[in-house]
Amino acid sequence: MTRYPKKAKSEIGLSPTELVFRGEKKVDQIQMGVIDFDETSVEEKTIQNVKEIATFAHKKTVTWFNIYGLHDIEILKEIGEEFNFDKLILADVLETQSRPKIEDFNNFVFISLKMIQFSEEKQDITVENLSLLFNDNILFSFQEKKGDVFEPVRNRIRNHKRKLRSSRPDYLAFALIDTVIDHYLYLLGMLGEKIESIDDVLIDHPNTSVIDEIKSYKKKINYIQKGIKPAKEMILALSKLESDFIHKKNKIHFKELVNNINQASDNVDSYRELLSDQLNVYHMMISSRLNDIMKFLTIFSVIFIPLTFIAGIYGTNFDVLPELHFKYGYYIMLGCMAVIAIAMLLYFKRKKWL
Amino acid sequence: MTRYPKKAKSEIGLSPTELVFRGEKKVDQIQMGVIDFDETSVEEKTIQNVKEIATFAHKKTVTWFNIYGLHDIEILKEIGEEFNFDKLILADVLETQSRPKIEDFNNFVFISLKMIQFSEEKQDITVENLSLLFNDNILFSFQEKKGDVFEPVRNRIRNHKRKLRSSRPDYLAFALIDTVIDHYLYLLGMLGEKIESIDDVLIDHPNTSVIDEIKSYKKKINYIQKGIKPAKEMILALSKLESDFIHKKNKIHFKELVNNINQASDNVDSYRELLSDQLNVYHMMISSRLNDIMKFLTIFSVIFIPLTFIAGIYGTNFDVLPELHFKYGYYIMLGCMAVIAIAMLLYFKRKKWL
Amino acid sequence: MTRYPKKAKSEIGLSPTELVFRGEKKVDQIQMGVIDFDETSVEEKTIQNVKEIATFAHKKTVTWFNIYGLHDIEILKEIGEEFNFDKLILADVLETQSRPKIEDFNNFVFISLKMIQFSEEKQDITVENLSLLFNDNILFSFQEKKGDVFEPVRNRIRNHKRKLRSSRPDYLAFALIDTVIDHYLYLLGMLGEKIESIDDVLIDHPNTSVIDEIKSYKKKINYIQKGIKPAKEMILALSKLESDFIHKKNKIHFKELVNNINQASDNVDSYRELLSDQLNVYHMMISSRLNDIMKFLTIFSVIFIPLTFIAGIYGTNFDVLPELHFKYGYYIMLGCMAVIAIAMLLYFKRKKWL
Amino acid sequence: MTRYPKKAKSEIGLSPTELVFRGEKKVDQIQMGVIDFDETSVEEKTIQNVKEIATFAHKKTVTWFNIYGLHDIEILKEIGEEFNFDKLILADVLETQSRPKIEDFNNFVFISLKMIQFSEEKQDITVENLSLLFNDNILFSFQEKKGDVFEPVRNRIRNHKRKLRSSRPDYLAFALIDTVIDHYLYLLGMLGEKIESIDDVLIDHPNTSVIDEIKSYKKKINYIQKGIKPAKEMILALSKLESDFIHKKNKIHFKELVNNINQASDNVDSYRELLSDQLNVYHMMISSRLNDIMKFLTIFSVIFIPLTFIAGIYGTNFDVLPELHFKYGYYIMLGCMAVIAIAMLLYFKRKKWL
Amino acid sequence: MTRYPKKAKSEIGLSPTELVFRGEKKVDQIQMGVIDFDETSVEEKTIQNVKEIATFAHKKTVTWFNIYGLHDIEILKEIGEEFNFDKLILADVLETQSRPKIEDFNNFVFISLKMIQFSEEKQDITVENLSLLFNDNILFSFQEKKGDVFEPVRNRIRNHKRKLRSSRPDYLAFALIDTVIDHYLYLLGMLGEKIESIDDVLIDHPNTSVIDEIKSYKKKINYIQKGIKPAKEMILALSKLESDFIHKKNKIHFKELVNNINQASDNVDSYRELLSDQLNVYHMMISSRLNDIMKFLTIFSVIFIPLTFIAGIYGTNFDVLPELHFKYGYYIMLGCMAVIAIAMLLYFKRKKWL
Ligand SMILES: [Mg+2]
Ligand SMILES: [Mg+2]
Ligand SMILES: [Mg+2]
Ligand SMILES: [Mg+2]
Ligand SMILES: [Mg+2]
Ligand SMILES: [Mg+2]
Ligand SMILES: [Mg+2]
Ligand SMILES: [Mg+2]
Ligand SMILES: [Mg+2]
Ligand SMILES: [Mg+2]
Ligand SMILES: [Mg+2]
Ligand SMILES: [Mg+2]
Ligand SMILES: [Mg+2]
Ligand SMILES: [Mg+2]
Ligand SMILES: [Mg+2]
Ligand SMILES: [Mg+2]
Ligand SMILES: [Mg+2]
Ligand SMILES: [Mg+2]
Ligand SMILES: [Mg+2]
Ligand SMILES: [Mg+2]
Ligand SMILES: [Mg+2]
Ligand SMILES: [Mg+2]
Ligand SMILES: [Mg+2]
Ligand SMILES: [Mg+2]
Ligand SMILES: [Mg+2]
Ligand SMILES: [Mg+2]
Ligand SMILES: [Mg+2]
Ligand SMILES: [Mg+2]
Ligand SMILES: [Mg+2]
Repeated sequence: MTRYPKKAKSEIGLSPTELVFRGEKKVDQIQMGVIDFDETSVEEKTIQNVKEIATFAHKKTVTWFNIYGLHDIEILKEIGEEFNFDKLILADVLETQSRPKIEDFNNFVFISLKMIQFSEEKQDITVENLSLLFNDNILFSFQEKKGDVFEPVRNRIRNHKRKLRSSRPDYLAFALIDTVIDHYLYLLGMLGEKIESIDDVLIDHPNTSVIDEIKSYKKKINYIQKGIKPAKEMILALSKLESDFIHKKNKIHFKELVNNINQASDNVDSYRELLSDQLNVYHMMISSRLNDIMKFLTIFSVIFIPLTFIAGIYGTNFDVLPELHFKYGYYIMLGCMAVIAIAMLLYFKRKKWL
Repeated sequence: MTRYPKKAKSEIGLSPTELVFRGEKKVDQIQMGVIDFDETSVEEKTIQNVKEIATFAHKKTVTWFNIYGLHDIEILKEIGEEFNFDKLILADVLETQSRPKIEDFNNFVFISLKMIQFSEEKQDITVENLSLLFNDNILFSFQEKKGDVFEPVRNRIRNHKRKLRSSRPDYLAFALIDTVIDHYLYLLGMLGEKIESIDDVLIDHPNTSVIDEIKSYKKKINYIQKGIKPAKEMILALSKLESDFIHKKNKIHFKELVNNINQASDNVDSYRELLSDQLNVYHMMISSRLNDIMKFLTIFSVIFIPLTFIAGIYGTNFDVLPELHFKYGYYIMLGCMAVIAIAMLLYFKRKKWL
Repeated sequence: MTRYPKKAKSEIGLSPTELVFRGEKKVDQIQMGVIDFDETSVEEKTIQNVKEIATFAHKKTVTWFNIYGLHDIEILKEIGEEFNFDKLILADVLETQSRPKIEDFNNFVFISLKMIQFSEEKQDITVENLSLLFNDNILFSFQEKKGDVFEPVRNRIRNHKRKLRSSRPDYLAFALIDTVIDHYLYLLGMLGEKIESIDDVLIDHPNTSVIDEIKSYKKKINYIQKGIKPAKEMILALSKLESDFIHKKNKIHFKELVNNINQASDNVDSYRELLSDQLNVYHMMISSRLNDIMKFLTIFSVIFIPLTFIAGIYGTNFDVLPELHFKYGYYIMLGCMAVIAIAMLLYFKRKKWL
Repeated sequence: MTRYPKKAKSEIGLSPTELVFRGEKKVDQIQMGVIDFDETSVEEKTIQNVKEIATFAHKKTVTWFNIYGLHDIEILKEIGEEFNFDKLILADVLETQSRPKIEDFNNFVFISLKMIQFSEEKQDITVENLSLLFNDNILFSFQEKKGDVFEPVRNRIRNHKRKLRSSRPDYLAFALIDTVIDHYLYLLGMLGEKIESIDDVLIDHPNTSVIDEIKSYKKKINYIQKGIKPAKEMILALSKLESDFIHKKNKIHFKELVNNINQASDNVDSYRELLSDQLNVYHMMISSRLNDIMKFLTIFSVIFIPLTFIAGIYGTNFDVLPELHFKYGYYIMLGCMAVIAIAMLLYFKRKKWL
Repeated sequence: MTRYPKKAKSEIGLSPTELVFRGEKKVDQIQMGVIDFDETSVEEKTIQNVKEIATFAHKKTVTWFNIYGLHDIEILKEIGEEFNFDKLILADVLETQSRPKIEDFNNFVFISLKMIQFSEEKQDITVENLSLLFNDNILFSFQEKKGDVFEPVRNRIRNHKRKLRSSRPDYLAFALIDTVIDHYLYLLGMLGEKIESIDDVLIDHPNTSVIDEIKSYKKKINYIQKGIKPAKEMILALSKLESDFIHKKNKIHFKELVNNINQASDNVDSYRELLSDQLNVYHMMISSRLNDIMKFLTIFSVIFIPLTFIAGIYGTNFDVLPELHFKYGYYIMLGCMAVIAIAMLLYFKRKKWL
């Protein structure tokens, strides 16, 4: 599997309104559901037929229409026609590998961003494209597969009569984006804890598997950065957007999103730098440790070199080699060897090589 | 072959309207063709004589006039005179090594950018300069050689009666630039897949050929960056251009181009960083592996050093060397040697050098 | 302990007005105090009951209400209701891990920033979130635990009748933020002195513990940077804020804050660079020193290699080996060895390897 | 020779209008010439006396007055008085080490920039300061020494009756600056070709002389960058300058200069990066190659170590050493040695160390 | 001595108008002098009593009042009261470790910047804080100690009747700041010459003392950068300041200051990069040279290893070892050894290891 988006040759030169599903098919069947609410009531329903939505959409309530799965282009087209989408919108929804962006259409505000999570199942980071589309009556959320990411928001709708229930879809959009950024922060915190724990491994027993670990986290963090960096641009643009569908009193919430995505971005920067520092420290530790070994062993060898040389001399077979015939010759040789070895040790000690 | 643009000494100090063909001659004969269309009809034709275009140009249809090959200055001059080009335009068209740019002339919008492709034939990246020139009636595309790059756009004109057929040349220009950026993304995706696969090689059998590979991809990516970076500036300027020839309803498409070129630029950044990380990891792996070898071998030597020394002592020829005459002297020596070797192995183990 | 902020899974998707205490409980009991002053008088009091504040708040005096401890949400809610806080404010006060920020509410200016200090007790840097909230009558300061950080400001209120006593809460806010930045500068100065002293260690006896030290300071500095960088953005925004509660004559003081935080930021940059330079120098010194050792020892070995070889030759047991029977054979061998050794030393000297 | 500009102690604190020649004296005698032209005629003349110019200057023609050599301050003063220069202008003209800049005086536009060339004679890059000064009637060019840099522009004046002959001095200024930038591009192309050819050397026979070469090109490129970077700022300012002496129809040419200098700046960036990559690759190649040698030789040594040890054992003189008296003892020992050597080779092969 | 500014614990939380002398006492006694001039006359005087100034200040002449030494707060207060300084000004003057800045008070423009010089005495760079304060009648310069830095400006006042004598204090301020920047450029030139000369040392005899030298210059340059970087911001702000005390005709001089400080900043960048390149080259040279030594010596050892092994074999005491009894056995062995040594040398040569 390759992680960065690829463009297929067949997609080159297509019309921007050409509807082609370019992603992975992540669910068998498109699933649609609706939550329709106002301050006094909430209605939740699974939907089989696009026509059913029409009944909700024209009430004064706020309608959140969520779609899981994007491969059935016919259903998407039907939705588009029912709600009079600009032709570009559905193509954007289908382009799941696109860069996070915001587009202000006449009758809708369109937002796309990346849901980034850690999948326990795949033991890896998964990225899913999320498209939001809202006006003052309805909000569409398009996801690639079913998930429980937005369950907390649904619970807030079900349980409270507060803010969320008395606001228009702009506040719902804020709540959804906020949840996505919360996931960024949660994921970064999780990774960060592991990255920081590498420090201990580095001190106690640095080994090559640490390189692999650091490299793997570096890839994950870079991957997350690729989602967060353009999201930062997008959210800044969103916070400044002048649209009829974004109410002045909610501006402060969109400004808060800027703050949160900046925090995520700061954390990405911090972890990138931490990983890069760790790699450096690892490199220095390994080379420092190997140097210790080499130094020890080389010194060890050097001490024996002259000793072996002396033994070699007295192993020669010269007819005339007077020392061999001294009474204590052997013991004198052993004594000399001891003296030489000790002298060398002292010399090395003084030179601080030991 | 050198890859970065060079300026010949003879080109220094030339007038900006001086027409000199500065590129490589990539085709034998300039070829000209026209596609003329409106909502109801399409006419395609190969053209031999510049005069023939005049008949198309003054109809209300949209005329796309494409020229392959730039070495015949006389034909280009004729076109320029026929359509009353600003004198600077043709010089720009001929300067195939120039930086992507946009220029708003009175009667035309001029755009130049780089078509970057992977040539199966040359097994390398090829860069071709593309100039576009359009007003509200006609669009000229100047290419260095014939290619099938824009075939998908031609097919959209031939087959559909949709958007492209009912728009003016600004939308056609969008479609062409979009196709060029699609090629950037496709090429980056292709390279990216290969770059990412280097990771596996790095883990399994890092060898010097990997440096060559990384370096070669680094060059390719840097080369692409040189085309994309100024194109990014140019497309941003294009999306903000106020011209009579760019219709308001198409603004959204030019804004989309900004998004796409940003994605290409993001990918270039990502791959640059990935390659640089790979080079670092390679370096650490090689040095880590060599260290392992050196460590093993040095330890091996060190164990034999004292043993050989002992053998040396008992190889001396002293008259008085009592151990030589012990009954079990030889076996005691072998035993001592075994003890020393084992002790050293244990010591190294405890020191974690093994 | 991990140092970068983490988000708990349970916090994902919460309403921005949901009051959850997300920090560490750093005190047992929330403590509240008030200093109420004008040009002529100062009154200081510990407060048990939120209602007590009301009596101060409606006087023309400036009231500084400080709260230590954030875990008792009920008390905070009571305060919020009493003073009609925007619902977002209390949630921000409780989010102790948030990024420094400024928010202009209708009836209050809200500021959050980080108090960074060196804790003698923990022998480490501690970070505490500080929230300030002021209008033209009252200033609230929310801290995580009791501390003597603002004692100098309190003393200025108690002792002088000058500026601070005759100003509104905006000047008090300035004085508090200024104190926080003074702490940044003090802390950076303290760390800086230690970092600079590493230079001496590097020259005299570079050892692996220096890596640990450098790494530890690098982490501390990066950690401080994480507090200062967004504070810089925040203070710049504060200096430009148009609010009824910030009086024109005090603008110059807020501008001064920008200057001071810039100095802190400059110092962070300088120390980061210094640490990074030190790591490089350490690396070069260690490798340069090891090279010296290896060089010496290898040369030492090399001198003995031919000598030992010669001894080996005359240790062979050939029947015919004429030199062994020369009268001065042994002495000639020793002489040759000396000549060889001296020649090699001279050669190495000339090659500048010694 | 040092390459970066130095300030002499005596120049500190001088008045900005103090006329001191601070450069190298590059010609013996100041030389002055004039080209005076309009659409119908051209007159070229060498001038001895400043008064002579007056006759040209007050005609409706365009007068290009060029001065080679700057050491004769009296002549420069005379020119300044004759044409009523602002006092700062001559000081700027004399400050040949200054940063490229543009200044809009009342009666003149002043431009300074660097002419950078490769001197065949010195085999090195030479930098010369060029000052241009123009209003709607006259253009002064001040150069440090005589050269043929602007010969192509003179030829355009002499030969054509086109654009240059029918324009005012602003277009002449454009033509001169354009020529200077063409020289940048030419020089960069020349250097670039050599830099790119280092790649081949790197692969075939990397040796220390490559470091010197890379370092020398790095210096050259950095040196060029020092001229181009501020020129980029200056030319951008020039393209935006609102002056009576820059005619609207020529704006497009000044915009083109921005494009060209950006290309030069891009190329500088590319070559800097290429050189830095080459240094890295060299480093990795050298260390990779040395590693190969060390590995081979160490393995070689290790194989002989146990063999020599065995020979040592049978060289001992124990009274009782049964193997010595076996009939085939010697041959068995040789056989064992062969087995050990082969086993070790196989082991190393399996471990992929060979 | 530590070089970066430290904040004392006792300074935390002080009022911005609190007057505390925070610097080093560099002179025993505060010294005050005045130069009072207009176009026709100059009067210079040493002053003992603050009251004396009053007589100068209320004339139409320009009064430059210079103060050396800042430790006597009472005198400073007296000056402040006499001339009605804003309370913040004196505190700023006393804060000698502050960042260069500009402040526009009602009755004065306040500027602080760093005088950076090379002290022959201390053989190190010294930094002194300089505060300037001017309106349309008077300019105050506050320095930490007496020096001859501004002597050239004084001479211009004494000798000429030109510009400086006929201008108001804004031009005097320009002349002083210009002198300070001239000192930056002079100092950078001096350092630069030494830095560039390291290149020669690197090529001829790279040794560890070069690291120390490079590191020492790096520190100096970083230190200078710390003064220049904020000065750049300050001078840019000064060039844009709209104040009654800065006359329009002098704007061009302040713009020139921007140019000069930019040149200083460019030079700092260049030298930083040069030093960093030198460190890299040193690293590569040292490792390249050591590699040569190691390679030579290892090869040397390897050649003797098999020879010594052979001698070892014929040193064994086997009863049956036929070669020992060959007539020419010894000579054959020596011959074989020579053949092996030569073969290995040839092999190494072919492998290009020699
Ligand atoms: Mg950040
Ligand atoms: Mg960030
Ligand atoms: Mg950061
Ligand atoms: Mg970053
Ligand atoms: Mg950073
Ligand atoms: Mg990008
Ligand atoms: Mg990017
Ligand atoms: Mg990126
Ligand atoms: Mg980038
Ligand atoms: Mg880049
Ligand atoms: Mg980035
Ligand atoms: Mg980056
Ligand atoms: Mg940073
Ligand atoms: Mg800074
Ligand atoms: Mg900074
Ligand atoms: Mg800095
Ligand atoms: Mg910096
Ligand atoms: Mg560029
Ligand atoms: Mg560039
Ligand atoms: Mg570039
Ligand atoms: Mg650059
Ligand atoms: Mg770049
Ligand atoms: Mg860089
Ligand atoms: Mg610069
Ligand atoms: Mg600079
Ligand atoms: Mg620079
Ligand atoms: Mg810098
Ligand atoms: Mg730079
Ligand atoms: Mg840099």
